[in-house]
Amino acid sequence: MRKTRVKKGVKGGTSGDLGERKLIKLMQSHLSVMPDLPVPFGDDVSAVNIGGGRVAVLKTDMLIGKTDVPRGMSLWQAARKAVVMNISDFAAKGVEPTALLVSLGLPRDFIQKDVEEIARGLNTGAREYGAYVVGGDTSEASDLVVAISLFGTAKRKELVLRSGARAGDIVAVTGFFGKTAAGLRLLLDGYATSKGLREVLLRSVCMPNARLCEGLALCRSGALSSSIDSSDGLAWSLHELARMSGVGFVVNKVPLADEVRRFAEFNGLDALELALYGGEEYELVVTVKPKRWADAEMAVKTAGGRLLPIGKATRDRQVLLDVDGEKSPIEARGWEHFKSKI
Amino acid sequence: MRKTRVKKGVKGGTSGDLGERKLIKLMQSHLSVMPDLPVPFGDDVSAVNIGGGRVAVLKTDMLIGKTDVPRGMSLWQAARKAVVMNISDFAAKGVEPTALLVSLGLPRDFIQKDVEEIARGLNTGAREYGAYVVGGDTSEASDLVVAISLFGTAKRKELVLRSGARAGDIVAVTGFFGKTAAGLRLLLDGYATSKGLREVLLRSVCMPNARLCEGLALCRSGALSSSIDSSDGLAWSLHELARMSGVGFVVNKVPLADEVRRFAEFNGLDALELALYGGEEYELVVTVKPKRWADAEMAVKTAGGRLLPIGKATRDRQVLLDVDGEKSPIEARGWEHFKSKI
Repeated sequence: MRKTRVKKGVKGGTSGDLGERKLIKLMQSHLSVMPDLPVPFGDDVSAVNIGGGRVAVLKTDMLIGKTDVPRGMSLWQAARKAVVMNISDFAAKGVEPTALLVSLGLPRDFIQKDVEEIARGLNTGAREYGAYVVGGDTSEASDLVVAISLFGTAKRKELVLRSGARAGDIVAVTGFFGKTAAGLRLLLDGYATSKGLREVLLRSVCMPNARLCEGLALCRSGALSSSIDSSDGLAWSLHELARMSGVGFVVNKVPLADEVRRFAEFNGLDALELALYGGEEYELVVTVKPKRWADAEMAVKTAGGRLLPIGKATRDRQVLLDVDGEKSPIEARGWEHFKSKI
Repeated sequence: MRKTRVKKGVKGGTSGDLGERKLIKLMQSHLSVMPDLPVPFGDDVSAVNIGGGRVAVLKTDMLIGKTDVPRGMSLWQAARKAVVMNISDFAAKGVEPTALLVSLGLPRDFIQKDVEEIARGLNTGAREYGAYVVGGDTSEASDLVVAISLFGTAKRKELVLRSGARAGDIVAVTGFFGKTAAGLRLLLDGYATSKGLREVLLRSVCMPNARLCEGLALCRSGALSSSIDSSDGLAWSLHELARMSGVGFVVNKVPLADEVRRFAEFNGLDALELALYGGEEYELVVTVKPKRWADAEMAVKTAGGRLLPIGKATRDRQVLLDVDGEKSPIEARGWEHFKSKI
């Protein structure tokens, strides 16, 4: 697993240098735009009108062995994770996943047991969220590739996009951050911790969960103005909501997981860094209309989750951290390879 | 481009040895089956009921640099081909493609121009068949991966599956075979030919076309009993129709392209081998109810194509070639890596 800190948006020659935004822009500039597209390029999912005010919702994302499967993660877990990371995008838009297809690239030396493990992992991931694997293809590849295509339907009006946040809205998240970043440091960089803590942090890496119940409840409540999943990190997600809504954020409470605080203290690491710039976490980052806060909170609670307010949307387009009245910028970066959404 | 003759169905340890059928069976045995699935596993496409007798039709297939992009094929052509090979499966079922998503795996050393070429190739492929690229993701990968997810809707009743052929039906194809196999031998094995012929054969490899108009017209005519695309080769396609319909075939006229006959003669190759076991050709192989032959022929003609009868479906489950009354088996093999459909 070789993840690189990407200078997002930096100009350069190779795709490795280009970064997320630049790749997106490059691709988009050569694509014809479907008329009356329900969801713009660059949101968590894509959609197509199917009549009667309904849309087919589509998402595809691939997991690649070299960059997305750290040592210590089984093939079963990797296949399940490939499903979960796609479900998470549906969760952020309030869409129930119905069916998925898989395009599998398999190295020639994979044995029967490996293929079975992958199939079982895909099935588990799908069934956990009520979806079914309905088809796919396999090809020979030099590295493991698990490309998932997820499908569901929704009412067009009920989709919550990244672009609806308004100044004054409350920005909130569905859980605490930093465990995956800490877990990856345990797996990859040889950091140490207690056995109990280790298990929690590794579980966060190997057995991620999508906040589907929370996302469905929140979007149906009508209380949200925008929503995104946090797979590219909390900081990056805030910047995406800000950019696509034309607002800024002041965060006065970083939702730092207690385990991450302890892990960081023990290892002399910056806990805030782990929580803000981690990535590969599948919480939801949403903005709530202030008058509807109680409804949003109740919806999530009824769904078995929690909603943590972390700050407010502002007219000023900056994304700032406010610690006891002292404001500093939250950077637009995540701990990611050049993974990007078109 | 390293393609290997796969002993399909052979038992073995690695995925490279397992072959298509075995991989399919392995995967399927670990997948929960969606209730009332409109299209069984193993057909050209997958489908999900969306109410009102309609289905969402889904297909995913990936193109991998090492195995699917021979030297001499540009990235623009490779990206376009990735789209065409998915469209071809829709064509075989009579489904109009609406939208596609792409999951791109890009080597780090790809430059800006490469990414732009890929985007333009995807867009061209989609627009040629009336579809739009509506989203996707990019990831870092060690080899080029272009995983396409194709979406469309159809009436459930109008889908033509692989399983409907009956003894006595006429088996027919939408074009002549062997050009791609000949073209690949030119590109990879150093065979020679005249300049004019070379262009035709290479065009077949680099600029394949899906028989969408023909497929839509044929399926809408109601004259078909079964249909498949020939991407795994004519022989393999016949065996698939036979297996899934519980019939056999006697082929008395191999639809051999004239260019292939000339290429084979010049190089001392077996033209029949190229036409039957080639693969990567995107014709349709269909069975037509005998009384409806004229309707099927007219439908294709109106769509600007042609329908060539090549033999008949039989009660006997063998797939045979009949040359002047002398019958010999057509083998269940194609010139393919272990690419398979779940």
